Amino acid sequence: MDRISAYLRDHQREHREWVTALCRIPSISTKPEHKDDCAAAARWTRDLCARIGLKAEVHETGGHPLVYAEHCQAAGAPTFLVYGHLDVQPEGDLGLWDAGPFEPVEKDGLLICRGSADDKGQVLIHLRAVAAWLAVEKRLPVNLKFLLEGEEEISSPHLGPFLEQHRDLLRCEHILISDTGMYADGWPTVTYGTRGLLYKEIRLSGPKHDLHSGSFGGTIANPANVLARIIASLHDADGRVTLPGFYDDVAEASPAEREQLRSLPFDEREYLADTGCPGVTGEKGYSTNERRWIRPTLDVNGIYGGFMAEGANTIIPARAGAKVSMRLVPNQKGEKISALFEQAIRARCPDTVRLEILHHGSADAYGAPLDSRPMRAARRALREAFDREPAFVREGGSLPILPLFKRVLGADSLMLGFAGPNCNAHGPNENVRLEDLDRGADAVARLYAYLTER
Amino acid sequence: MDRISAYLRDHQREHREWVTALCRIPSISTKPEHKDDCAAAARWTRDLCARIGLKAEVHETGGHPLVYAEHCQAAGAPTFLVYGHLDVQPEGDLGLWDAGPFEPVEKDGLLICRGSADDKGQVLIHLRAVAAWLAVEKRLPVNLKFLLEGEEEISSPHLGPFLEQHRDLLRCEHILISDTGMYADGWPTVTYGTRGLLYKEIRLSGPKHDLHSGSFGGTIANPANVLARIIASLHDADGRVTLPGFYDDVAEASPAEREQLRSLPFDEREYLADTGCPGVTGEKGYSTNERRWIRPTLDVNGIYGGFMAEGANTIIPARAGAKVSMRLVPNQKGEKISALFEQAIRARCPDTVRLEILHHGSADAYGAPLDSRPMRAARRALREAFDREPAFVREGGSLPILPLFKRVLGADSLMLGFAGPNCNAHGPNENVRLEDLDRGADAVARLYAYLTER
Repeated sequence: MDRISAYLRDHQREHREWVTALCRIPSISTKPEHKDDCAAAARWTRDLCARIGLKAEVHETGGHPLVYAEHCQAAGAPTFLVYGHLDVQPEGDLGLWDAGPFEPVEKDGLLICRGSADDKGQVLIHLRAVAAWLAVEKRLPVNLKFLLEGEEEISSPHLGPFLEQHRDLLRCEHILISDTGMYADGWPTVTYGTRGLLYKEIRLSGPKHDLHSGSFGGTIANPANVLARIIASLHDADGRVTLPGFYDDVAEASPAEREQLRSLPFDEREYLADTGCPGVTGEKGYSTNERRWIRPTLDVNGIYGGFMAEGANTIIPARAGAKVSMRLVPNQKGEKISALFEQAIRARCPDTVRLEILHHGSADAYGAPLDSRPMRAARRALREAFDREPAFVREGGSLPILPLFKRVLGADSLMLGFAGPNCNAHGPNENVRLEDLDRGADAVARLYAYLTER
Repeated sequence: MDRISAYLRDHQREHREWVTALCRIPSISTKPEHKDDCAAAARWTRDLCARIGLKAEVHETGGHPLVYAEHCQAAGAPTFLVYGHLDVQPEGDLGLWDAGPFEPVEKDGLLICRGSADDKGQVLIHLRAVAAWLAVEKRLPVNLKFLLEGEEEISSPHLGPFLEQHRDLLRCEHILISDTGMYADGWPTVTYGTRGLLYKEIRLSGPKHDLHSGSFGGTIANPANVLARIIASLHDADGRVTLPGFYDDVAEASPAEREQLRSLPFDEREYLADTGCPGVTGEKGYSTNERRWIRPTLDVNGIYGGFMAEGANTIIPARAGAKVSMRLVPNQKGEKISALFEQAIRARCPDTVRLEILHHGSADAYGAPLDSRPMRAARRALREAFDREPAFVREGGSLPILPLFKRVLGADSLMLGFAGPNCNAHGPNENVRLEDLDRGADAVARLYAYLTER
């Protein structure tokens, strides 16, 4: 590994320039006027892959193209699929950026530009590791496939069909992803689970039009009051969700995992300062990290009804509604929770209003096995490259690609993230610590080697 | 009385033409471009008053003018103040009218036009009665003062100051108002009470901006969920308002009054068809009429927070709020209920969100004594003119002028309403039954006489 690490050090400047070059291409997948840029980012990446020794091609998908590349010459060694994405979020309010979002700036050890952290900089960590291996050893210790898509920021509409159509091409033992963050600056982090999502909308209607609250108030059910009662009924005094059966399939975290999560430093004051909330709260018996990572939740995302403008209007609303979503954990299934949600809401809704329940989608939770070979290899590789025992965390949000990979390819995912906690992905002045990219490439080069170890 | 009734019959055509003439003037007080029309309606009415023998003048108010008229030559007899208004609601959607709103049409016994029921037709009922008395008897049995304002539909902004400045001029024993409706077609009705109003707004804020519901869900208080909990807490399972002290000052209706209210025919199917509600509900132990007339209520008039557009957005709202108003009954006081509302909301709001309570105004309830001389006189006059025992009802909405008259002039109000239940005041094709106007004039002419009886 020393020669490979040395190669990476020697080529640091060149490799960092790869990042700035790719970040100069404004591959904003959500904006039609950047369609050509998305294609350009794919071509640029394909060319780089080819230059460092991978077999690479651009695939059309019906939307923005993706790059598939591979180096599968390690006979007898396992095969891994590296997933990443080449598209970026829109620039947002330009006035909030210190420089142009697509004009990379180096400052105080940071590379500042759109895509530096999410996900171009992290995709190139893997290509830097591959380049080092192939330059120094003329081989890879494992078989590697790369799937670098162009539509992650628009929910990967063509990824599922592509996986279905190319199962054989993409066959692998495990997925490797670098698209997450570090628990603290310079602290290498493995994210081993994400929560799922179930998103519903409750719509209540009463009178055929808004009624005068004087003439009718007190005689008929007010949809907004009924809605409040239904929503209030969804939690008990301990902050637990009261849908019957909601917790039945929850895979309780082991005492060891909970111990590990609780050992992570957590600064509540900082958390409150960052969010602006007056206090933390949540399900009784769990820490804040446990509440956001290992526990399912239910939140109103929006609520509406009646007179919502400034001032006063004395009506009984004809309609009221709420968007209600649940974050699910392994092994809750969206379909089952959806059914028991609807059943409970119907049971709690009086027949003095009409009820409609809309479904806005769901995504399964994901949990990677904690004692897998890739997990052990990652721990060692990250420890060596960063001189620090890596953090193992979960993520409260959802990553639908993880259950998708599991379902279509039958493969679990290892998420090694190198974006800092203040990277501002999706926001202005997105940034990454250049040192983290460099160490990340060293860690990933080591990971490839250790992945062969039983 | 026979000669007066005969005079009214003989002059029916002429008197009906007064209504159409006044209704042709589009005195829409809410629209600045109709300012001159509002003044014209005042002048037209003053001229009519003068022609039938009243001393009349137009008073400027700072807004739209009002008409004051009087005939105070009944020495030793009591003095009454007739209140009415000459302004009308805007025409609304012209496409919903069968003819122009200010082009009166007679059809199937109805006079259809804006102002026919609310309130020009009813104002003229009184002037018809006066005209008959003065033509036939050359005198009135009581002293009468008329206060016909031009700003009722815009909440009478200049009425209070006018009353304060003209206490002596307006001094009277009782107020007479014909600006309400009949319980059923052709059923003369006295409205002897109105509910008050207290209008508040609850605003909760949590995070400084909307947060990702995945990353943060479960760890901090969601303002929309907290809001739902607070609102749900405001009623108990029996539909009673749970604010401590809320019912303390409620003047309970007597068994006799409740018996009387329950004796009024009430068609629940029709009520549900009219409102479009699937069912009635409300405070346990009370009928629908009791719930809307004699019981205080609490309703959400509007609720808002987070993502309210179509579709889904996975946020925890930074803010959520609700407009909450209470209908009050005698002898609840807005100020006291306001204080106990704020106290209860503060007590029920957890310290994990920030709370702000806005005040959007209040109006006192009003209840007229049921055994007064005017009430007895009205019962007899209405019975004789309509060949039917009148209905005695309350009104669920608020009429701030009633407590205003009580406070400034020390006078109670008698409300004799002649608008039909389907008069569509404020809506398209506003109408009044011409026969009800005719009988109304006869009833009011009798009322003037019977008001002198002890």
